[in-house]
Amino acid sequence: MEPVRVALLGCGVVGSEVARNLTTHGAELAQRVGAPLELAGIAVRRLGRARELDLDPALFTTDAAGLVKDADVVVEVIGGIEPARSLLLEAMAAGAGVVTANKALLAEDGPTLYEAATRHGVDLYYEASVAGAIPLLRPLRESLAGDRVTRVLGIVNGTTNYILDKMHTAGMGFAEALEQAQALGYAEADPTADVEGFDAAAKAAILASLAFHTRVSAADVHREGITTVTAADVASAREMHAVVKLLAICERGSDADSGESVSVRVHPAMIPDTHPLAGVGDAYNAVFVQAEAAGELMFYGRGAGGQPTASAVLGDLVSVARNRVGGGRGPGESAYADLPVRPIGDVPTRYHISLDVEDRPGVLAQVALVFAEQGVSIETVRQQVHPREGGGDRAALVIVTHRAPDAALSATVDALAGLDTVASVDSVMRVEGED
Amino acid sequence: MEPVRVALLGCGVVGSEVARNLTTHGAELAQRVGAPLELAGIAVRRLGRARELDLDPALFTTDAAGLVKDADVVVEVIGGIEPARSLLLEAMAAGAGVVTANKALLAEDGPTLYEAATRHGVDLYYEASVAGAIPLLRPLRESLAGDRVTRVLGIVNGTTNYILDKMHTAGMGFAEALEQAQALGYAEADPTADVEGFDAAAKAAILASLAFHTRVSAADVHREGITTVTAADVASAREMHAVVKLLAICERGSDADSGESVSVRVHPAMIPDTHPLAGVGDAYNAVFVQAEAAGELMFYGRGAGGQPTASAVLGDLVSVARNRVGGGRGPGESAYADLPVRPIGDVPTRYHISLDVEDRPGVLAQVALVFAEQGVSIETVRQQVHPREGGGDRAALVIVTHRAPDAALSATVDALAGLDTVASVDSVMRVEGED
Repeated sequence: MEPVRVALLGCGVVGSEVARNLTTHGAELAQRVGAPLELAGIAVRRLGRARELDLDPALFTTDAAGLVKDADVVVEVIGGIEPARSLLLEAMAAGAGVVTANKALLAEDGPTLYEAATRHGVDLYYEASVAGAIPLLRPLRESLAGDRVTRVLGIVNGTTNYILDKMHTAGMGFAEALEQAQALGYAEADPTADVEGFDAAAKAAILASLAFHTRVSAADVHREGITTVTAADVASAREMHAVVKLLAICERGSDADSGESVSVRVHPAMIPDTHPLAGVGDAYNAVFVQAEAAGELMFYGRGAGGQPTASAVLGDLVSVARNRVGGGRGPGESAYADLPVRPIGDVPTRYHISLDVEDRPGVLAQVALVFAEQGVSIETVRQQVHPREGGGDRAALVIVTHRAPDAALSATVDALAGLDTVASVDSVMRVEGED
Repeated sequence: MEPVRVALLGCGVVGSEVARNLTTHGAELAQRVGAPLELAGIAVRRLGRARELDLDPALFTTDAAGLVKDADVVVEVIGGIEPARSLLLEAMAAGAGVVTANKALLAEDGPTLYEAATRHGVDLYYEASVAGAIPLLRPLRESLAGDRVTRVLGIVNGTTNYILDKMHTAGMGFAEALEQAQALGYAEADPTADVEGFDAAAKAAILASLAFHTRVSAADVHREGITTVTAADVASAREMHAVVKLLAICERGSDADSGESVSVRVHPAMIPDTHPLAGVGDAYNAVFVQAEAAGELMFYGRGAGGQPTASAVLGDLVSVARNRVGGGRGPGESAYADLPVRPIGDVPTRYHISLDVEDRPGVLAQVALVFAEQGVSIETVRQQVHPREGGGDRAALVIVTHRAPDAALSATVDALAGLDTVASVDSVMRVEGED
């Protein structure tokens, strides 16, 4: 049997695990593919790294463009937009199937890759781009292809989950928890991509595209990170028997005027203790999927790391190589639904708002009037009175709303902050996971 | 585009949902397949049922054999061995791809179906046969095809999970909980297949075959049901901060003499409160998968019911139809590993044993000696002394062992029961989920 020639682009944490598995489990993988997988070469930026790894030095090259021209399958684990995109497009043009873990590229320019895959009749697989080892994209692309997904709610960034988990369980502030995450290697020296939600937003775009058969790019995703989450927010959540999680939320919606649409957002939110996602601790990932016929599904596992990500890459590699040996192709882009993306202001959300107010008659009525003026309905109000330093009482008002357009909720918060009787708005956070 | 002609065999709870979705979501499914799906006919035993459903009466026929001859894809939701097997073999011989939800058939005679699929170059998909709507077989067959699965631990029978959940949360006995499950339609009038573990054993055989790339049939599965689980067992578990679940356990093992092997078993077991499977309540299913690179994964959702099962069937149908339109085939049987199945006596397990003993010096030493004679190491002993009716004290000894061959543990229990100082063996149950 002719071997399937595999070109590996990148040899960092993930790439080196892919290469190691290809060499140590070669016989087993060959049985699953129906032909041997031959590691044709590994493209790296500098050859120095090659010496540190237990791999044949002759495999390494700095000529990525040359390598992809002679491969049956190209595995890309470089990350970033360029040169990854050009290399994958060249690979497909030369007839190679492609496996990538590149969430940024898929979320920014997935359609270009898909178009190339269709034009050249090759496979494009990218399970590792979202939630590491957790089989999630194949279930969305294939297992649920006969169903209608209505919502995806996920913890898809391990770094921020680790930080929020520490804030919740150990009472740390954001800065301290971030520092610990960095010390343990869960967060990078520049943590922006994780803590500002860029990483999760890219994944949300990919999930929404697959779940709703429509095009969603990273730019369509409303994004808020966790840098403004305070110990007070986390404490406030705990009092409500809830936890704060950074969620990627993809929803199908519809209204009488504009018909069906999707909304895609990444932001911290309070979810009740009893929600299956609430128990997802440490740097784990988990994704909750709701579909019309299937009901509620959850997928849980390690969302990052060399080995887990390599597991997903190798699963895709076996699929692409098997298709190559047996003929046929995996699913291409499915974007027929072509749904508009709703701006965040129109998306129905719920807010938890904690206010520091003067404790005197009429304050609650004044506050309630602000909500009414914005057309926002209140679900619960809790008032706690405690003595103020320097005499007199103050009260903490904790309000949870019913669903309302996010813009109305946001305007409500602005109006509350302007009230004379409101000393400060102590915590504002969306509430999810209760429907 | 030529339509793909779909023959539906069976129109019960699942079949009617499949038919309903095919007709109501036809346009959307056509987009995903790349061609329209045409429901060519529905084979039923008696035509009477047709009138109760909101489906074109002209679709129904009692001539299943005639229907399959003229189909591109045959969907089988009749269940049972015959006539399902003959019809599927005829369908494949006539060139049709096959989708089935039939766990009993797959677990008893999967290789025969796979051989026919290979010989005739057609697809064989059966996601709905295990854990209903939860995407599980596709992840095992494809997503984890580049990894080495070491263990599958699952709650794969909703009826028994409902019963055990009620015994745990509401303190019911088995009979009462079963009665309630029957009243709610979770258990059948004859509950044998569920409560004796036959259903779970068939699913365990399917899971083990896919996870370990080897043939495992229902007859290879060690099976114990939940009919002997008592309120005392459940209470004893609760004292240990554990819950009783009926688990399907598939493990890869190896020893110096015989090399690699697999063990596959279904039995009630105590798992710690903190294990993700412990929180799976009601009639939900969940499956925990451990793989060398991926680490721990969990899949959760509805394991039964018309709509969830139809979701899985329709996902397979889209895949098979898409392969038909685009060329190519899904994965065939992967049984190259050809591993022996270990008898239960050789499988390392842990026991929880609760004894009613006389409270006098020397009893614990005598009990400990029995364990030592069988080469079983004790992990914890807990002794509770309470007054005996009619005077004198008695003691409850609760012992949890380390792992030992199941035969040695079983022999230990027999020997303990024969001791003069042991009044009764009150609870014996395996302990899982702590490694």
